[in-house]
Amino acid sequence: MMKQDDLTLVRNLPMFAKVTESQLASLAVRGSLQRYPRGTLLFQEGDGADFLMVLLEGGVELFARDQGGTEAVVETLFPVDSFILAAALTGAPYLMSARTLMPSRVLLLDADIFRTAVAADPDLSAPVMAELAQHFRRLVRQIKDLKLRTGVQRLGCYVLGLAGGADEVQLPFDKRTLASRLGMTAENLSRALSALRDHGLSVQGNRLLIQDRERLTAFSRPDPLIDAPEGRLSLRGE
Amino acid sequence: MMKQDDLTLVRNLPMFAKVTESQLASLAVRGSLQRYPRGTLLFQEGDGADFLMVLLEGGVELFARDQGGTEAVVETLFPVDSFILAAALTGAPYLMSARTLMPSRVLLLDADIFRTAVAADPDLSAPVMAELAQHFRRLVRQIKDLKLRTGVQRLGCYVLGLAGGADEVQLPFDKRTLASRLGMTAENLSRALSALRDHGLSVQGNRLLIQDRERLTAFSRPDPLIDAPEGRLSLRGE
Repeated sequence: MMKQDDLTLVRNLPMFAKVTESQLASLAVRGSLQRYPRGTLLFQEGDGADFLMVLLEGGVELFARDQGGTEAVVETLFPVDSFILAAALTGAPYLMSARTLMPSRVLLLDADIFRTAVAADPDLSAPVMAELAQHFRRLVRQIKDLKLRTGVQRLGCYVLGLAGGADEVQLPFDKRTLASRLGMTAENLSRALSALRDHGLSVQGNRLLIQDRERLTAFSRPDPLIDAPEGRLSLRGE
Repeated sequence: MMKQDDLTLVRNLPMFAKVTESQLASLAVRGSLQRYPRGTLLFQEGDGADFLMVLLEGGVELFARDQGGTEAVVETLFPVDSFILAAALTGAPYLMSARTLMPSRVLLLDADIFRTAVAADPDLSAPVMAELAQHFRRLVRQIKDLKLRTGVQRLGCYVLGLAGGADEVQLPFDKRTLASRLGMTAENLSRALSALRDHGLSVQGNRLLIQDRERLTAFSRPDPLIDAPEGRLSLRGE
Protein backbone atom coordinates (compact mmCIF):
# COMPACT_ATOMS: atom_id res chain seq x y z
CA MET A 1 0.00 0.00 0.00
CA MET A 2 1.12 3.47 -0.89
CA LYS A 3 0.86 6.27 1.63
CA GLN A 4 -0.97 9.44 0.63
CA ASP A 5 2.23 11.48 0.93
CA ASP A 6 4.02 9.19 -1.50
CA LEU A 7 1.16 9.37 -3.95
CA THR A 8 1.47 13.16 -3.81
CA LEU A 9 5.22 12.85 -4.45
CA VAL A 10 4.70 10.58 -7.45
CA ARG A 11 2.16 13.01 -8.87
CA ASN A 12 4.92 15.65 -8.97
CA LEU A 13 6.04 13.82 -12.09
CA PRO A 14 3.94 15.19 -14.93
CA MET A 15 3.60 11.73 -16.42
CA PHE A 16 1.79 10.64 -13.29
CA ALA A 17 0.00 13.93 -12.58
CA LYS A 18 -3.41 12.44 -13.28
CA VAL A 19 -2.79 8.91 -12.06
CA THR A 20 -5.30 7.66 -9.47
CA GLU A 21 -4.35 5.73 -6.36
CA SER A 22 -5.83 2.52 -7.75
CA GLN A 23 -4.03 2.94 -11.10
CA LEU A 24 -0.75 3.46 -9.30
CA ALA A 25 -1.46 0.46 -7.07
CA SER A 26 -1.99 -1.69 -10.16
CA LEU A 27 1.21 -0.35 -11.79
CA ALA A 28 3.10 -1.20 -8.63
CA VAL A 29 1.49 -4.59 -8.12
CA ARG A 30 4.67 -6.48 -8.80
CA GLY A 31 6.76 -3.43 -7.98
CA SER A 32 7.21 -1.83 -4.63
CA LEU A 33 8.50 1.08 -2.63
CA GLN A 34 12.04 0.45 -1.48
CA ARG A 35 14.44 2.17 0.90
CA TYR A 36 18.13 1.80 0.08
CA PRO A 37 21.28 2.80 1.98
CA ARG A 38 23.99 4.88 0.29
CA GLY A 39 26.03 3.01 -2.29
CA THR A 40 23.39 0.41 -3.21
CA LEU A 41 23.63 -0.93 -6.75
CA LEU A 42 20.08 -0.82 -8.14
CA PHE A 43 20.80 -2.52 -11.45
CA GLN A 44 23.66 -3.15 -13.85
CA GLU A 45 24.12 -2.20 -17.49
CA GLY A 46 23.32 -5.09 -19.78
CA ASP A 47 20.55 -6.42 -17.53
CA GLY A 48 17.02 -6.64 -18.88
CA ALA A 49 14.78 -3.77 -17.80
CA ASP A 50 12.27 -5.21 -15.34
CA PHE A 51 11.28 -1.96 -13.66
CA LEU A 52 10.67 1.69 -14.25
CA MET A 53 12.12 3.52 -11.27
CA VAL A 54 10.91 6.72 -9.64
CA LEU A 55 13.24 8.42 -7.19
CA LEU A 56 11.18 9.82 -4.29
CA GLU A 57 13.95 10.74 -1.83
CA GLY A 58 17.76 10.80 -1.93
CA GLY A 59 19.97 10.78 -5.01
CA VAL A 60 21.06 8.32 -7.70
CA GLU A 61 23.97 8.17 -10.13
CA LEU A 62 23.63 6.49 -13.51
CA PHE A 63 27.04 5.26 -14.56
CA ALA A 64 28.84 3.01 -17.01
CA ARG A 65 32.00 0.98 -16.78
CA ASP A 66 34.62 0.09 -19.37
CA GLN A 67 36.25 -3.30 -19.72
CA GLY A 68 39.07 -2.21 -17.44
CA GLY A 69 36.60 -1.35 -14.67
CA THR A 70 36.88 2.43 -14.99
CA GLU A 71 33.55 4.11 -14.22
CA ALA A 72 31.98 7.23 -15.71
CA VAL A 73 28.92 8.98 -14.33
CA VAL A 74 26.45 9.69 -17.13
CA GLU A 75 23.86 11.47 -14.98
CA THR A 76 23.04 12.33 -11.39
CA LEU A 77 19.38 12.46 -10.39
CA PHE A 78 17.46 14.04 -7.56
CA PRO A 79 13.80 13.73 -6.48
CA VAL A 80 11.26 13.58 -7.91
CA ASP A 81 12.49 12.02 -11.15
CA SER A 82 11.96 8.87 -13.13
CA PHE A 83 14.88 6.98 -14.55
CA ILE A 84 15.56 4.29 -17.07
CA LEU A 85 12.30 5.13 -18.83
CA ALA A 86 13.59 4.34 -22.35
CA ALA A 87 14.69 0.83 -21.37
CA ALA A 88 11.53 0.16 -19.35
CA LEU A 89 9.32 1.18 -22.29
CA THR A 90 11.11 -0.85 -24.93
CA GLY A 91 12.39 -3.80 -22.90
CA ALA A 92 15.90 -3.14 -24.22
CA PRO A 93 18.82 -3.88 -21.88
CA TYR A 94 19.95 -1.10 -19.54
CA LEU A 95 22.80 0.93 -21.05
CA MET A 96 23.77 2.25 -17.60
CA SER A 97 24.08 0.97 -14.06
CA ALA A 98 22.45 2.80 -11.14
CA ARG A 99 23.68 3.35 -7.60
CA THR A 100 22.37 5.44 -4.71
CA LEU A 101 24.48 8.48 -3.84
CA MET A 102 22.82 8.76 -0.42
CA PRO A 103 20.05 6.97 1.48
CA SER A 104 17.17 6.91 -0.99
CA ARG A 105 13.59 5.84 -1.46
CA VAL A 106 12.69 4.46 -4.89
CA LEU A 107 9.36 3.34 -6.31
CA LEU A 108 9.71 0.33 -8.61
CA LEU A 109 7.00 -0.05 -11.23
CA ASP A 110 6.74 -3.28 -13.16
CA ALA A 111 7.95 -2.55 -16.72
CA ASP A 112 5.55 -4.94 -18.47
CA ILE A 113 2.50 -3.57 -16.69
CA PHE A 114 3.71 -0.02 -17.30
CA ARG A 115 4.17 -0.62 -21.04
CA THR A 116 0.70 -2.11 -21.34
CA ALA A 117 -0.85 0.80 -19.45
CA VAL A 118 1.00 3.38 -21.56
CA ALA A 119 -0.06 1.73 -24.83
CA ALA A 120 -3.71 1.63 -23.73
CA ASP A 121 -4.13 5.04 -22.10
CA PRO A 122 -3.60 8.31 -24.03
CA ASP A 123 -3.74 10.18 -20.70
CA LEU A 124 -0.59 8.31 -19.80
CA SER A 125 1.12 8.04 -23.20
CA ALA A 126 1.12 11.79 -23.92
CA PRO A 127 2.94 12.78 -20.69
CA VAL A 128 5.26 9.77 -20.99
CA MET A 129 6.29 11.04 -24.43
CA ALA A 130 6.90 14.49 -22.97
CA GLU A 131 9.00 12.95 -20.19
CA LEU A 132 11.07 10.99 -22.73
CA ALA A 133 11.53 14.16 -24.77
CA GLN A 134 12.72 15.95 -21.64
CA HIS A 135 15.23 13.21 -20.85
CA PHE A 136 16.48 13.32 -24.45
CA ARG A 137 16.97 17.07 -24.28
CA ARG A 138 18.85 16.78 -20.99
CA LEU A 139 21.40 14.56 -22.75
CA VAL A 140 21.64 16.93 -25.73
CA ARG A 141 22.53 19.69 -23.27
CA GLN A 142 25.15 17.52 -21.64
CA ILE A 143 26.76 16.66 -24.98
CA LYS A 144 26.89 20.36 -25.85
CA ASP A 145 28.44 21.00 -22.44
CA LEU A 146 31.04 18.27 -23.03
CA LYS A 147 31.92 19.27 -26.57
CA LEU A 148 31.78 23.06 -26.48
CA ARG A 149 33.50 23.79 -23.17
CA THR A 150 36.76 23.20 -21.39
CA GLY A 151 36.56 21.31 -18.10
CA VAL A 152 37.15 24.53 -16.17
CA GLN A 153 34.27 26.32 -17.92
CA ARG A 154 32.06 23.27 -17.43
CA LEU A 155 32.75 23.35 -13.72
CA GLY A 156 32.08 27.10 -13.58
CA CYS A 157 28.71 26.68 -15.30
CA TYR A 158 27.86 23.74 -13.06
CA VAL A 159 28.56 25.79 -9.92
CA LEU A 160 26.56 28.77 -11.22
CA GLY A 161 23.65 26.47 -12.01
CA LEU A 162 23.77 24.79 -8.62
CA ALA A 163 23.96 28.15 -6.84
CA GLY A 164 20.99 29.70 -8.58
CA GLY A 165 20.84 33.13 -6.96
CA ALA A 166 22.86 32.13 -3.85
CA ASP A 167 26.52 32.93 -3.32
CA GLU A 168 27.34 29.78 -1.39
CA VAL A 169 27.01 26.25 -2.69
CA GLN A 170 27.39 22.90 -0.99
CA LEU A 171 28.35 20.13 -3.43
CA PRO A 172 25.56 17.54 -3.33
CA PHE A 173 27.98 14.61 -3.58
CA ASP A 174 31.68 13.86 -3.35
CA LYS A 175 34.28 15.25 -5.72
CA ARG A 176 34.94 11.88 -7.38
CA THR A 177 31.30 11.78 -8.53
CA LEU A 178 31.36 15.43 -9.60
CA ALA A 179 34.53 14.92 -11.62
CA SER A 180 33.09 11.90 -13.38
CA ARG A 181 29.76 13.64 -14.05
CA LEU A 182 31.70 16.49 -15.68
CA GLY A 183 33.81 14.08 -17.75
CA MET A 184 37.03 14.86 -15.85
CA THR A 185 39.54 12.95 -13.76
CA ALA A 186 39.66 13.75 -10.03
CA GLU A 187 43.06 15.42 -10.59
CA ASN A 188 41.68 17.62 -13.35
CA LEU A 189 38.75 18.61 -11.14
CA SER A 190 41.18 19.71 -8.41
CA ARG A 191 43.12 21.73 -10.95
CA ALA A 192 39.88 23.22 -12.31
CA LEU A 193 38.75 24.25 -8.81
CA SER A 194 42.10 25.95 -8.33
CA ALA A 195 41.88 27.62 -11.71
CA LEU A 196 38.46 29.08 -10.83
CA ARG A 197 40.03 30.90 -7.86
CA ASP A 198 41.33 33.35 -10.47
CA HIS A 199 37.78 33.80 -11.77
CA GLY A 200 35.80 34.66 -8.68
CA LEU A 201 35.28 31.32 -6.89
CA SER A 202 36.64 30.34 -3.50
CA VAL A 203 36.72 26.73 -2.33
CA GLN A 204 36.54 25.39 1.22
CA GLY A 205 36.23 21.61 1.11
CA ASN A 206 32.77 20.83 -0.28
CA ARG A 207 31.65 24.44 0.20
CA LEU A 208 32.05 26.79 -2.73
CA LEU A 209 31.73 30.55 -2.42
CA ILE A 210 30.96 32.73 -5.39
CA GLN A 211 32.95 35.85 -4.54
CA ASP A 212 32.69 37.59 -7.88
CA ARG A 213 29.69 36.39 -9.86
CA GLU A 214 30.38 38.71 -12.75
CA ARG A 215 33.91 37.38 -13.26
CA LEU A 216 32.83 33.77 -12.86
CA THR A 217 30.03 34.30 -15.38
CA ALA A 218 32.28 36.14 -17.87
CA PHE A 219 34.77 33.29 -17.73
CA SER A 220 32.36 30.31 -17.73
CA ARG A 221 29.89 31.77 -20.23
CA PRO A 222 26.68 29.96 -19.24
CA ASP A 223 24.24 29.52 -22.13
CA PRO A 224 20.47 29.35 -21.66
CA LEU A 225 20.21 26.51 -24.20
CA ILE A 226 22.58 24.41 -22.07
CA ASP A 227 22.25 25.62 -18.49
CA ALA A 228 18.90 27.29 -17.86
CA PRO A 229 16.57 24.84 -16.15
CA GLU A 230 13.99 23.69 -18.66
CA GLY A 231 10.39 23.93 -17.44
CA ARG A 232 8.40 20.74 -17.59
CA LEU A 233 7.50 19.98 -21.19
CA SER A 234 4.17 18.68 -22.35
CA LEU A 235 3.10 17.08 -25.58
CA ARG A 236 1.09 20.07 -26.68
CA GLY A 237 3.74 22.60 -25.72
CA GLU A 238 1.27 24.05 -23.20
CA MET B 1 1.88 14.92 -53.71
CA MET B 2 4.20 12.25 -52.48
CA LYS B 3 5.61 9.69 -54.87
CA GLN B 4 5.12 6.00 -54.09
CA ASP B 5 8.89 5.52 -53.72
CA ASP B 6 9.06 8.24 -51.10
CA LEU B 7 6.15 6.77 -49.18
CA THR B 8 8.05 3.48 -49.11
CA LEU B 9 11.13 5.31 -47.82
CA VAL B 10 9.16 7.03 -45.06
CA ARG B 11 7.69 3.69 -44.02
CA ASN B 12 11.22 2.47 -43.31
CA LEU B 13 10.89 4.48 -40.12
CA PRO B 14 9.06 2.23 -37.66
CA MET B 15 7.03 5.16 -36.40
CA PHE B 16 5.53 5.52 -39.88
CA ALA B 17 5.47 1.82 -40.75
CA LYS B 18 1.69 1.70 -40.73
CA VAL B 19 0.98 5.21 -41.97
CA THR B 20 -1.28 5.39 -45.01
CA GLU B 21 -0.70 7.64 -47.98
CA SER B 22 -3.63 9.87 -47.02
CA GLN B 23 -2.47 10.11 -43.39
CA LEU B 24 0.98 11.10 -44.55
CA ALA B 25 -0.50 13.59 -46.98
CA SER B 26 -2.45 15.20 -44.14
CA LEU B 27 0.67 15.26 -41.91
CA ALA B 28 2.54 16.97 -44.69
CA VAL B 29 -0.22 19.37 -45.63
CA ARG B 30 1.67 22.40 -44.43
CA GLY B 31 4.98 20.59 -44.76
CA SER B 32 6.65 19.42 -47.89
CA LEU B 33 9.38 17.43 -49.50
CA GLN B 34 12.48 19.54 -50.00
CA ARG B 35 15.74 19.10 -51.83
CA TYR B 36 18.73 20.97 -50.37
CA PRO B 37 22.30 21.47 -51.62
CA ARG B 38 25.26 20.65 -49.37
CA GLY B 39 25.80 23.11 -46.54
CA THR B 40 22.19 24.31 -46.24
CA LEU B 41 21.19 25.49 -42.78
CA LEU B 42 17.83 23.82 -42.05
CA PHE B 43 17.16 25.54 -38.72
CA GLN B 44 18.97 27.24 -35.87
CA GLU B 45 19.14 26.42 -32.19
CA GLY B 46 16.78 28.60 -30.19
CA ASP B 47 14.17 28.71 -32.96
CA GLY B 48 10.71 27.36 -32.29
CA ALA B 49 10.12 23.87 -33.64
CA ASP B 50 7.76 24.20 -36.59
CA PHE B 51 8.55 20.90 -38.29
CA LEU B 52 9.43 17.32 -37.67
CA MET B 53 12.06 16.40 -40.25
CA VAL B 54 12.62 13.07 -41.93
CA LEU B 55 15.86 12.62 -43.83
CA LEU B 56 15.16 10.60 -47.00
CA GLU B 57 18.45 11.03 -48.87
CA GLY B 58 21.83 12.58 -48.07
CA GLY B 59 23.23 13.42 -44.65
CA VAL B 60 22.67 16.00 -41.91
CA GLU B 61 24.74 17.28 -39.00
CA LEU B 62 23.10 18.51 -35.82
CA PHE B 63 25.41 21.02 -34.21
CA ALA B 64 25.61 23.72 -31.56
CA ARG B 65 27.59 26.91 -31.29
CA ASP B 66 29.05 28.70 -28.30
CA GLN B 67 29.00 32.47 -27.80
CA GLY B 68 32.41 32.76 -29.46
CA GLY B 69 31.09 31.05 -32.59
CA THR B 70 32.88 27.72 -32.08
CA GLU B 71 30.77 24.85 -33.39
CA ALA B 72 30.42 21.29 -32.08
CA VAL B 73 28.69 18.47 -33.94
CA VAL B 74 26.28 16.68 -31.60
CA GLU B 75 25.14 14.04 -34.11
CA THR B 76 25.44 13.08 -37.75
CA LEU B 77 22.43 11.44 -39.40
CA PHE B 78 21.92 9.31 -42.47
CA PRO B 79 18.72 8.09 -44.19
CA VAL B 80 16.18 7.10 -43.26
CA ASP B 81 16.00 8.88 -39.92
CA SER B 82 13.82 11.43 -38.21
CA PHE B 83 15.35 14.32 -36.38
CA ILE B 84 14.34 16.96 -33.90
CA LEU B 85 11.49 14.72 -32.72
CA ALA B 86 11.66 15.83 -29.06
CA ALA B 87 11.33 19.51 -29.98
CA ALA B 88 8.61 18.86 -32.56
CA LEU B 89 6.54 16.89 -30.04
CA THR B 90 6.79 19.37 -27.20
CA GLY B 91 7.04 22.66 -29.06
CA ALA B 92 10.20 23.49 -27.11
CA PRO B 93 12.90 25.51 -28.90
CA TYR B 94 15.52 23.56 -30.88
CA LEU B 95 18.64 22.88 -28.80
CA MET B 96 20.68 22.24 -31.94
CA SER B 97 21.07 23.67 -35.43
CA ALA B 98 20.93 21.44 -38.51
CA ARG B 99 22.91 21.62 -41.74
CA THR B 100 23.14 19.29 -44.72
CA LEU B 101 26.46 17.45 -45.08
CA MET B 102 25.74 16.64 -48.74
CA PRO B 103 22.88 17.16 -51.19
CA SER B 104 19.84 15.89 -49.27
CA ARG B 105 16.12 15.33 -49.50
CA VAL B 106 14.11 16.06 -46.37
CA LEU B 107 10.42 15.60 -45.64
CA LEU B 108 9.05 18.38 -43.44
CA LEU B 109 6.01 17.47 -41.36
CA ASP B 110 4.06 20.20 -39.65
CA ALA B 111 4.79 19.90 -35.90
CA ASP B 112 1.31 20.98 -34.73
CA ILE B 113 -0.47 18.52 -36.99
CA PHE B 114 1.99 15.79 -36.03
CA ARG B 115 1.44 16.39 -32.29
CA THR B 116 -2.31 16.26 -32.70
CA ALA B 117 -2.12 13.04 -34.71
CA VAL B 118 0.22 11.41 -32.19
CA ALA B 119 -2.01 12.32 -29.24
CA ALA B 120 -5.10 10.93 -30.98
CA ASP B 121 -3.75 7.73 -32.50
CA PRO B 122 -2.23 4.91 -30.39
CA ASP B 123 -0.96 3.27 -33.61
CA LEU B 124 1.23 6.35 -34.00
CA SER B 125 2.01 7.17 -30.36
CA ALA B 126 3.47 3.75 -29.51
CA PRO B 127 6.10 3.74 -32.29
CA VAL B 128 6.83 7.44 -31.69
CA MET B 129 7.65 6.60 -28.08
CA ALA B 130 9.91 3.78 -29.26
CA GLU B 131 11.63 6.19 -31.66
CA LEU B 132 12.18 8.73 -28.88
CA ALA B 133 13.56 5.97 -26.65
CA GLN B 134 15.94 4.99 -29.43
CA HIS B 135 17.13 8.56 -29.86
CA PHE B 136 17.64 8.84 -26.10
CA ARG B 137 19.69 5.66 -26.02
CA ARG B 138 21.84 6.85 -28.91
CA LEU B 139 22.84 9.87 -26.82
CA VAL B 140 23.52 7.72 -23.74
CA ARG B 141 25.91 5.69 -25.88
CA GLN B 142 27.62 8.84 -27.09
CA ILE B 143 28.08 10.16 -23.54
CA LYS B 144 29.61 6.84 -22.50
CA ASP B 145 31.87 7.05 -25.55
CA LEU B 146 32.91 10.60 -24.61
CA LYS B 147 33.48 9.93 -20.92
CA LEU B 148 34.98 6.44 -20.89
CA ARG B 149 37.41 6.65 -23.79
CA THR B 150 40.38 8.64 -24.97
CA GLY B 151 40.01 10.41 -28.30
CA VAL B 152 42.24 7.81 -29.97
CA GLN B 153 40.13 4.90 -28.71
CA ARG B 154 36.97 6.75 -29.70
CA LEU B 155 38.29 7.14 -33.24
CA GLY B 156 39.30 3.46 -33.33
CA CYS B 157 35.82 2.33 -32.26
CA TYR B 158 34.22 4.73 -34.76
CA VAL B 159 36.29 3.31 -37.62
CA LEU B 160 35.55 -0.29 -36.60
CA GLY B 161 31.82 0.51 -36.43
CA LEU B 162 31.86 2.24 -39.82
CA ALA B 163 33.78 -0.63 -41.39
CA GLY B 164 31.49 -3.39 -40.16
CA GLY B 165 33.11 -6.49 -41.64
CA ALA B 166 35.03 -4.60 -44.36
CA ASP B 167 38.71 -3.74 -44.20
CA GLU B 168 38.46 -0.48 -46.07
CA VAL B 169 36.45 2.54 -45.00
CA GLN B 170 35.68 5.77 -46.74
CA LEU B 171 34.91 8.60 -44.28
CA PRO B 172 31.36 9.75 -44.99
CA PHE B 173 32.23 13.42 -44.42
CA ASP B 174 35.22 15.67 -44.00
CA LYS B 175 37.69 15.42 -41.13
CA ARG B 176 36.53 18.66 -39.53
CA THR B 177 33.05 17.18 -39.07
CA LEU B 178 34.44 13.87 -37.85
CA ALA B 179 36.68 15.58 -35.30
CA SER B 180 33.79 17.64 -33.97
CA ARG B 181 31.45 14.62 -33.83
CA LEU B 182 34.08 12.80 -31.77
CA GLY B 183 34.57 15.78 -29.45
CA MET B 184 38.10 16.54 -30.70
CA THR B 185 39.89 19.41 -32.36
CA ALA B 186 41.02 18.89 -35.97
CA GLU B 187 44.63 18.81 -34.74
CA ASN B 188 43.84 16.11 -32.19
CA LEU B 189 42.07 14.06 -34.86
CA SER B 190 45.19 14.21 -37.06
CA ARG B 191 47.31 13.10 -34.12
CA ALA B 192 44.81 10.32 -33.30
CA LEU B 193 44.89 9.06 -36.90
CA SER B 194 48.68 8.97 -36.72
CA ALA B 195 48.57 7.19 -33.36
CA LEU B 196 46.31 4.47 -34.79
CA ARG B 197 49.02 3.61 -37.36
CA ASP B 198 50.71 1.83 -34.45
CA HIS B 199 47.52 -0.13 -33.80
CA GLY B 200 46.70 -1.62 -37.17
CA LEU B 201 45.15 1.26 -39.13
CA SER B 202 46.56 2.86 -42.25
CA VAL B 203 45.33 6.23 -43.53
CA GLN B 204 45.27 7.50 -47.11
CA GLY B 205 43.38 10.78 -47.20
CA ASN B 206 39.72 9.99 -46.52
CA ARG B 207 40.33 6.26 -47.06
CA LEU B 208 41.15 4.19 -44.00
CA LEU B 209 42.51 0.64 -44.22
CA ILE B 210 42.19 -1.77 -41.35
CA GLN B 211 45.42 -3.72 -41.70
CA ASP B 212 45.32 -5.55 -38.39
CA ARG B 213 41.78 -5.82 -37.05
CA GLU B 214 42.84 -7.74 -33.97
CA ARG B 215 45.32 -5.08 -32.88
CA LEU B 216 42.92 -2.24 -33.62
CA THR B 217 40.19 -4.01 -31.63
CA ALA B 218 42.50 -4.82 -28.71
CA PHE B 219 43.54 -1.18 -28.51
CA SER B 220 40.15 0.50 -29.07
CA ARG B 221 38.10 -1.98 -27.02
CA PRO B 222 34.68 -1.65 -28.65
CA ASP B 223 31.81 -2.41 -26.27
CA PRO B 224 28.48 -3.84 -27.45
CA LEU B 225 26.59 -1.47 -25.11
CA ILE B 226 28.20 1.51 -26.85
CA ASP B 227 29.07 0.43 -30.36
CA ALA B 228 26.92 -2.46 -31.54
CA PRO B 229 24.13 -1.17 -33.76
CA GLU B 230 20.90 -1.34 -31.80
CA GLY B 231 18.04 -3.03 -33.63
CA ARG B 232 14.87 -1.01 -34.02
CA LEU B 233 13.10 -0.85 -30.67
CA SER B 234 9.38 -1.12 -30.18
CA LEU B 235 7.16 -0.26 -27.27
CA ARG B 236 6.51 -3.86 -26.38
CA GLY B 237 10.07 -5.00 -26.77
CA GLU B 238 8.96 -7.30 -29.58
